[in-house]
Amino acid sequence: MRDEGIGDVYEFDQATAVRPVDGTKFAMDVDEGWTVGPKPNGGYLLAAAARAGALALAEAGADHSDPASSTAHYLAAPDPGPAEIVTQVLRTGRTASQVRATIVQDGRACVDATFTMGSLTADSEGPWWSNRVPFDLPPIDECVRLPSAIEGGSMVVSIMDRSDLRLDPAVIGFATGRPAGTGELRGWISFADGRPIDPLGLLFMVDAFPPATFELAPTGWVPTISLTVYVRAVPAPGPLRVRQAAQVVDGGRLDEICEVWDVRDRLVAQATQLAAIRIPEGLTPPPLRR
Amino acid sequence: MRDEGIGDVYEFDQATAVRPVDGTKFAMDVDEGWTVGPKPNGGYLLAAAARAGALALAEAGADHSDPASSTAHYLAAPDPGPAEIVTQVLRTGRTASQVRATIVQDGRACVDATFTMGSLTADSEGPWWSNRVPFDLPPIDECVRLPSAIEGGSMVVSIMDRSDLRLDPAVIGFATGRPAGTGELRGWISFADGRPIDPLGLLFMVDAFPPATFELAPTGWVPTISLTVYVRAVPAPGPLRVRQAAQVVDGGRLDEICEVWDVRDRLVAQATQLAAIRIPEGLTPPPLRR
Repeated sequence: MRDEGIGDVYEFDQATAVRPVDGTKFAMDVDEGWTVGPKPNGGYLLAAAARAGALALAEAGADHSDPASSTAHYLAAPDPGPAEIVTQVLRTGRTASQVRATIVQDGRACVDATFTMGSLTADSEGPWWSNRVPFDLPPIDECVRLPSAIEGGSMVVSIMDRSDLRLDPAVIGFATGRPAGTGELRGWISFADGRPIDPLGLLFMVDAFPPATFELAPTGWVPTISLTVYVRAVPAPGPLRVRQAAQVVDGGRLDEICEVWDVRDRLVAQATQLAAIRIPEGLTPPPLRR
Repeated sequence: MRDEGIGDVYEFDQATAVRPVDGTKFAMDVDEGWTVGPKPNGGYLLAAAARAGALALAEAGADHSDPASSTAHYLAAPDPGPAEIVTQVLRTGRTASQVRATIVQDGRACVDATFTMGSLTADSEGPWWSNRVPFDLPPIDECVRLPSAIEGGSMVVSIMDRSDLRLDPAVIGFATGRPAGTGELRGWISFADGRPIDPLGLLFMVDAFPPATFELAPTGWVPTISLTVYVRAVPAPGPLRVRQAAQVVDGGRLDEICEVWDVRDRLVAQATQLAAIRIPEGLTPPPLRR
């Protein structure tokens, strides 16, 4: 978890803090400041589960706290307030260990997460080979910060006060009812209070953007069914560039991919999620644009 | 699981058969015919876990047997022979239910899988929107069937006798020591005994191809750390087209994506996996080719 020098003065660390109840069970407070409407953000919950998982691995003698591969299935949305995280170490190994962490509230399993954790080196060299290319964004001060609430709007997205998310002006048509029809969002992100972004923080960053379908058509909210995240490298200090893209909307389900790049042009995280989507009757899809 | 009319005369159904031990525990025989070298294939194991998971859901009163979103973390490779699958129903719902299934052999957890299962309709219409485009392949009889063993070779890949996998001649350079440097494999696949490919069968199809790194450089085997599969539609009868592509090789790890298309040009399954990879000392990466 690379806590060296991060401490618990930052909002993200306070909100994902877990307290050991016994060797495998942890207590957490689902924080009302990390919500989308009334419910906590999925990436935030995944990060809290990872924190508990890493502590359970440490308890089992495994020094693996960087989430290399994480998957959460979202069973029910917990409310802000007390919850438990039940962990089970699945295996401890030399280069990687596996652990499961389930967020439970009022006896109901809400998030089931499984992790393969390892150890990343902050100053590692770049990839041996990659076919992914970074993308350009306008400078941060030319991008548009998403607010947590809009005048006359009914929903507060409190994670927009915790993160500093700035969208490329080319992908904000949705805000005025004119989505570009591309199903893609791009922008800069960092923690609003300047917390350095470590591998744990990346679990939040990959799910902090609005649904990429916002730039497709006005389809309403898209609750995540499952989220899978690969953390590939420790980000260099500085804001990250995120590209989130819808791929296929079929049978009431949607998949979205997410890539996160750091200021060195290093791909530091990849994610994919399957979400539910309700297409309003009679809504025609936009023509395919690339 | 859509067993109507499939029965257990097919090899895949025999090899993934599970027998209830009690309401949550199942017995299986890890089949020596579904191996890569001495060890069972990861997609085959995922399919067996899904079969147990669907039975556990049925036992709990949930009629959800199509694996919409599946993730397995591979902890240890079991040997062919008896194993147990321990299931836990996480939630039953109206349109989807979640279940976990862990393959255990000799008291050791080998595969930890979690599923969100739903119900797919075979005759559903196409996607509402998609930015994925199918790819062309030469006709099946112009593609090259991969054998389970090569003369003088030390390893038997028995899944190549269970499936009929035919690679595009453009991506078989690896077989003669001349990989194209693209990190991409494409080909046709079906079950060798003609078993129809249902959603359960797709869990095998997404992991049946050789590592896409074979067309990158001679890096040796790449053991899967975790595999995530989305089944998007019931395939139309007929062989499937598979595209498997390496994306990023970094820090001893590799991610590969997989797309599976049916004869109607419908994207029926998507997968991503994180694998371990050991780059031989001094091996230079090929230049990026698109």
